[in-house]
Amino acid sequence: MIRFESDYTQGAVPEIIERLAATNMEMTPGYGEDEYCESAREKIRSEINVPDADVHFLVGGTQTNLTFIASVLRPYQGVICADTGHINIHETGSIEACGHKLLTLPATDGKITAEQVAALNDGHYADPTFEHMTQPGMVYISQPTECGTLYSKAELTALSEVCRERGLTLYMDGARLGYSLACKRNDLTLSDIARLCDAFYIGGTKVGALFGEALVITKESCKKDFRYMMKQKGAMLAKGRLLGLQFDTLFTDGLYHRVSENAASLAEKIRGAFEEKGIELFFDSPTNQQFPVLTKEQYNTLAKDFVFCDWCRKGDRYVVRFCTSWATRVEDVEELVRAVEAL
Amino acid sequence: MIRFESDYTQGAVPEIIERLAATNMEMTPGYGEDEYCESAREKIRSEINVPDADVHFLVGGTQTNLTFIASVLRPYQGVICADTGHINIHETGSIEACGHKLLTLPATDGKITAEQVAALNDGHYADPTFEHMTQPGMVYISQPTECGTLYSKAELTALSEVCRERGLTLYMDGARLGYSLACKRNDLTLSDIARLCDAFYIGGTKVGALFGEALVITKESCKKDFRYMMKQKGAMLAKGRLLGLQFDTLFTDGLYHRVSENAASLAEKIRGAFEEKGIELFFDSPTNQQFPVLTKEQYNTLAKDFVFCDWCRKGDRYVVRFCTSWATRVEDVEELVRAVEAL
Amino acid sequence: MIRFESDYTQGAVPEIIERLAATNMEMTPGYGEDEYCESAREKIRSEINVPDADVHFLVGGTQTNLTFIASVLRPYQGVICADTGHINIHETGSIEACGHKLLTLPATDGKITAEQVAALNDGHYADPTFEHMTQPGMVYISQPTECGTLYSKAELTALSEVCRERGLTLYMDGARLGYSLACKRNDLTLSDIARLCDAFYIGGTKVGALFGEALVITKESCKKDFRYMMKQKGAMLAKGRLLGLQFDTLFTDGLYHRVSENAASLAEKIRGAFEEKGIELFFDSPTNQQFPVLTKEQYNTLAKDFVFCDWCRKGDRYVVRFCTSWATRVEDVEELVRAVEAL
Amino acid sequence: MIRFESDYTQGAVPEIIERLAATNMEMTPGYGEDEYCESAREKIRSEINVPDADVHFLVGGTQTNLTFIASVLRPYQGVICADTGHINIHETGSIEACGHKLLTLPATDGKITAEQVAALNDGHYADPTFEHMTQPGMVYISQPTECGTLYSKAELTALSEVCRERGLTLYMDGARLGYSLACKRNDLTLSDIARLCDAFYIGGTKVGALFGEALVITKESCKKDFRYMMKQKGAMLAKGRLLGLQFDTLFTDGLYHRVSENAASLAEKIRGAFEEKGIELFFDSPTNQQFPVLTKEQYNTLAKDFVFCDWCRKGDRYVVRFCTSWATRVEDVEELVRAVEAL
Repeated sequence: MIRFESDYTQGAVPEIIERLAATNMEMTPGYGEDEYCESAREKIRSEINVPDADVHFLVGGTQTNLTFIASVLRPYQGVICADTGHINIHETGSIEACGHKLLTLPATDGKITAEQVAALNDGHYADPTFEHMTQPGMVYISQPTECGTLYSKAELTALSEVCRERGLTLYMDGARLGYSLACKRNDLTLSDIARLCDAFYIGGTKVGALFGEALVITKESCKKDFRYMMKQKGAMLAKGRLLGLQFDTLFTDGLYHRVSENAASLAEKIRGAFEEKGIELFFDSPTNQQFPVLTKEQYNTLAKDFVFCDWCRKGDRYVVRFCTSWATRVEDVEELVRAVEAL
Repeated sequence: MIRFESDYTQGAVPEIIERLAATNMEMTPGYGEDEYCESAREKIRSEINVPDADVHFLVGGTQTNLTFIASVLRPYQGVICADTGHINIHETGSIEACGHKLLTLPATDGKITAEQVAALNDGHYADPTFEHMTQPGMVYISQPTECGTLYSKAELTALSEVCRERGLTLYMDGARLGYSLACKRNDLTLSDIARLCDAFYIGGTKVGALFGEALVITKESCKKDFRYMMKQKGAMLAKGRLLGLQFDTLFTDGLYHRVSENAASLAEKIRGAFEEKGIELFFDSPTNQQFPVLTKEQYNTLAKDFVFCDWCRKGDRYVVRFCTSWATRVEDVEELVRAVEAL
Repeated sequence: MIRFESDYTQGAVPEIIERLAATNMEMTPGYGEDEYCESAREKIRSEINVPDADVHFLVGGTQTNLTFIASVLRPYQGVICADTGHINIHETGSIEACGHKLLTLPATDGKITAEQVAALNDGHYADPTFEHMTQPGMVYISQPTECGTLYSKAELTALSEVCRERGLTLYMDGARLGYSLACKRNDLTLSDIARLCDAFYIGGTKVGALFGEALVITKESCKKDFRYMMKQKGAMLAKGRLLGLQFDTLFTDGLYHRVSENAASLAEKIRGAFEEKGIELFFDSPTNQQFPVLTKEQYNTLAKDFVFCDWCRKGDRYVVRFCTSWATRVEDVEELVRAVEAL
Repeated sequence: MIRFESDYTQGAVPEIIERLAATNMEMTPGYGEDEYCESAREKIRSEINVPDADVHFLVGGTQTNLTFIASVLRPYQGVICADTGHINIHETGSIEACGHKLLTLPATDGKITAEQVAALNDGHYADPTFEHMTQPGMVYISQPTECGTLYSKAELTALSEVCRERGLTLYMDGARLGYSLACKRNDLTLSDIARLCDAFYIGGTKVGALFGEALVITKESCKKDFRYMMKQKGAMLAKGRLLGLQFDTLFTDGLYHRVSENAASLAEKIRGAFEEKGIELFFDSPTNQQFPVLTKEQYNTLAKDFVFCDWCRKGDRYVVRFCTSWATRVEDVEELVRAVEAL
């Protein structure tokens, strides 16, 4: 069986494993105050071109989302997000467990618009009973979205303006950020993202690391005392250097982008094969997740040799997900392409 | 101006004021452990025909909802409710502030169905990633709903069965419960409600009391240690007798129902007037809230002499709310009826 | 039996009952936005001499404490307080339930000192692992304390200075504030308290009202959006005028102080009787709570005719509490005095 | 410089690094549902001799503590623990952030007794105002304690009995559990601990792993739905196999115990050297942490060549901590011993 069901089935890029081994018996201070973390921070700051950004390394995505969101909001504030957003759907109510309501907007292909955010926020204050309702406090988006789609520079700029005019913190979940940056249709750089968002995280777990996310905070008022929050939420790794070392490796000589390109270009091959065959793609995803809509027969044929993921139904057809990653092998994709051609 | 904008603009039924005055200098134990509370509890238990029900008196509706819901759920559980439910719309995220997600269902005229609840609950467990999602723990409904509509005995029975089969606690918000019980179309008694729900509250604030709600818990597993929860949430009134005395008065000689009938019958007169005139009613409400859909001109004409409440827009017309209560005077309703006839 | 066990066994001063009755059928807006609330706010602002103070009316003490404290602190901050403080001992963990640790200091006669606060705060930042510990965010004191003792103007001034130098919010729980203001040894006015604290509440429940506390916020940064917090915590009374009307009555013509003096002067008589008799007083309380240390025999003798409250043991003797209030009758105290003389 | 300041300054035992490398490109399911986790679970169940124990792998100690404690308690319940307990002192209020008060007991050498627990619990219910106070829900202890001391089998048995009689969950924080099991004075096996506690965790971060703690739950009522809690708290590692693989390695052929013995025996050498020299040890610790009380001169002399940790002052002398670990080298300890001899 060749597996395409997710982008976190394997370990890490070999460079990381080698460096873990090489540095294993070194003695360093704990809790992210070591030289590897500091070096990784510097490399990220330099790449995003924000010398005074705060960079924190956390272990996973849910943890990063809940720790940052809880640190920003006052108790009566909520998070504006897509109804399809990961924090709304797949994090077991972790944000509500920190006391905050999600103010969901109907998403289009996983995305929300500046207009929707403005309308929700302004509608809140226009209602005379506003104090009886959760106050909008921030906006959460993902890049790429759950549907593999992308915010364009124009869209993100519009969101950013709407948020800044209204004092809403704009936060981007970048669990798969590398795969968005590497894909052809993308027109945003890390530096653009850092400039337009108030905070975002650069995903490692799904993009070449064993685990780890690099949270970047650029908005001054969100920086204060964040390490207290990390410790309180169990998000401060004792041997923090394990995170620093991984991000230092990924941000040396463009490795993060190189491994992302592997996923992006192989996903394109897969998309091409389905398109060629006239098989509908459920979302117009330019990134490492592809969502073909299969007949029962096509589904069964592919399921003989490939592992993929059930997404939903469309009438009597099956929407499934094929995922590439930094570790996906060309030969496996070629075999998939042949199988699609033969459907 | 004659005011119909809400059902909590005035004090309490005169019997309550008189008794407050008469008992003012008596000395009683605090925190709901006095004889008035005990007497009120007995009268309610007797009326609902559940001798071992737990009855607690709290000050307001939001407080009652949050204290009970937080006492029932485990941290990863959420509340199934209508998207129009009061806890979702108008309590400033108080349930989320206790850590729990609301699992909203699209309501029809403010109501949710047994089928919807079953589908949401069963769909949860059918999803292989269920542990990544909030687990359904209870169902919240209101009687009457925010739209003034009612659950029938058949509908409540169906909800009750679905909940009991699945271990979901069924809780009814009865802020205006008296007005539902008193209206013609209602086919549920307090005793039915006590039998079909696991807990519910009998609203006092909007139905004849100065303030106060009587929470009735019939499900054994929900009873334990509830007074700790009340104290922790600031919901245990020091001079608890003020609540006991009010409910004792309301549940003596059927006063609660008598004052509710005033609101119900006057609301019918109002509905009749609008119907007679051919003016659409936005919700088919048989209770004390009526929602006519007015033209701009009609709106302005009525607004000269009457205070009512804006609800929403329907095209270029205005949905408004007229509310009656225990205190509404016949002559005021008659003047409104004449004004509607003259539109 | 003559009862001295607490100061919340009776209703309210007759003036309040009369006004409740007189205004019962008036129609007013809800949620504290009525004229009675506004008038009461103005009277309090005028008395404390802070024209721009925010004044909110809440129902009870635990509710007021938790709502204000939760509104001030960031998630990783805690409250410095006496280990004997009411929030630490008798509010069922309500502050922790909002997410915040209490940083307790050993109290002397219920009080903490500016030096203790400074040492705790400065010690926190001096510890290199400070991010692994709860950050001090505010200071909670009570006036009078749980032991009936008082902060002097010098002590409160010192606390205030220490707090302001360190950015700690100073909050005073005034459940029995009237009884402190009315006692001979007190050297603080309401205006002093308003100037030295960042927020405090003027207790009504124990000082002449049926229920209710008036929270006064003078620190600018603590004012924002407090009504959202009230609603979220179930602390916004629908018929808010009931609170406004009570405080308006209490703050008309010095009624609050007059009724407090009754409690204070009668408590002095009680203290005098015990002192005369050579019976030790456990705390040197100048306010409405007196704590004699009785032998078993004395205890039994007094318990025949009087209800009082067990406090603790001192060796083989019994520390008990006698409480006076706005409603205590001279003749009852005289009978107690005679009984003490006869011990 | 030779470093003895903590037991988490280095990576992992070489066996773990090798296996991480060897399995790096394997594809496995996520979230702890892989074969490595299952194998590790089986080995732990077998060693503790509880075939139906639930075993979960989490990343760090604070995370494990807060996730388990929050899963066990009802909202008004608190945790009984030593005032020196790690959750009270060094986890930034993480338990309070989940809503729960810590009910601290004065510790003796880091330990609390069965008698103290019984007295606190029974005193709670004996107080007529018990509903106004946090209800004891569980007991938290550490083995070894923060002071390096140990609970004996007799002490743990007594605690266990007191807890079971009272329905309190007994939970042991085993961040350094290996080092307790390996030391000479210990009379508890892992199997004893599993039998006497309701839950405990086997620390990996400080005992040979890169990171990771193995939480073992034996009490039936604590097992339900724990994976929801893990996901909600951000404690479910995407590539869960990284944890399974580490514990599988540590629990193969007694590796966990072998590496622990290194720390224990070297710590004894260090203790011996200080005792020989007549230097007081602040705690009578038989485990990997040693706390000599040094004069200023001794401190300065040792500080030239060794890194150790400041603990507290004892009069004008300095209490410091020397820590050994799985990775401590004999030659480094021998150099320390010589330096102590030469003081």
